[in-house]
Amino acid sequence: MSITANPQINGVDVPTLFATLDAVREQNEIAAFRFRASNTWVRGTHSRSTYSGFFGAGQEMQHRHDTVVESDHPEVLVGSDQAPTPVEYLLHAIAACLTAGIANVAAARGVELSKVSSTVEGDIDLLGILGLSDGSVRNGYEQIKVTLHVEGDADDATLRGIVEQSRRRSAVYDVLTQPTPVAIEVVTG
Amino acid sequence: MSITANPQINGVDVPTLFATLDAVREQNEIAAFRFRASNTWVRGTHSRSTYSGFFGAGQEMQHRHDTVVESDHPEVLVGSDQAPTPVEYLLHAIAACLTAGIANVAAARGVELSKVSSTVEGDIDLLGILGLSDGSVRNGYEQIKVTLHVEGDADDATLRGIVEQSRRRSAVYDVLTQPTPVAIEVVTG
Repeated sequence: MSITANPQINGVDVPTLFATLDAVREQNEIAAFRFRASNTWVRGTHSRSTYSGFFGAGQEMQHRHDTVVESDHPEVLVGSDQAPTPVEYLLHAIAACLTAGIANVAAARGVELSKVSSTVEGDIDLLGILGLSDGSVRNGYEQIKVTLHVEGDADDATLRGIVEQSRRRSAVYDVLTQPTPVAIEVVTG
Repeated sequence: MSITANPQINGVDVPTLFATLDAVREQNEIAAFRFRASNTWVRGTHSRSTYSGFFGAGQEMQHRHDTVVESDHPEVLVGSDQAPTPVEYLLHAIAACLTAGIANVAAARGVELSKVSSTVEGDIDLLGILGLSDGSVRNGYEQIKVTLHVEGDADDATLRGIVEQSRRRSAVYDVLTQPTPVAIEVVTG
């Protein structure tokens, strides 16, 4: 479990990962990233977002391909259920962020993973968003629970340590658990 | 701009929307929802989530169709850029949540919308997640900025009021701006 000479472990190019860390350590300003999404209303509660480019490493970059995702409300909430709800995307975000971190941390520690899977559940009391609470019910999730299954060539404590390090460095975990300022600018026409 | 007799405005079935509010007001417990995502690691920083069912209105329900979404890190961050990053899904979530709310609130207020579009930008300094900060840089977004373009058969103040009411009742806005507990359970094998 020392750092392996194999450049690819868990599909992570470990020498490049460490070289990237070194590059950012030398030149902090390349760590400033700006991600973007563009959303268009379709009808009712149905809308569509496109991801195309982002700013990072000191320059404007393009994703390898554009991605389109949609959201809607379910029929029981008077939507047309064309796609998952907006809040369900938060569940993917936390699962995917922790999982990417687990793969990276495991690779850096020389641990080969054979499986990472998770289920994420978010509990929400809709009395909040429906405006039917006296103020005691929040609009968002009361709690989110992630259940991770991790298998690899390391013992239980090592695998748990990898998950914990991923949590400690997770951007999505931080945004969910700590306040993030959201500014809304409105242009009418 | 009084409440319209037209049952469909902005693709929102207004009588059903009000009937749903009445039903929840009568029976608060049907407002308890649990949303879910299941994620599987693919390789490196690439993973895939599936949305299928959820619990709501007192019963287990299925989405009209399953949805699969993926995440990866970009190549500049040693990923294979197969899909948007986990943090980019947070940007879709806030845009889609505000937009669905705008359509609902506008319909409830009898305002016909002709356009809602938005761009969302999230600024993140990767010194945090890369562990290269002295602790002053957070892991997540430093700020998120939503720029909304809203057009409809109402004046500027009315349209802004609709956006503001959507923000006030937005589940995703609440999760991003207020702390949400995230529990992580690990099973190793």
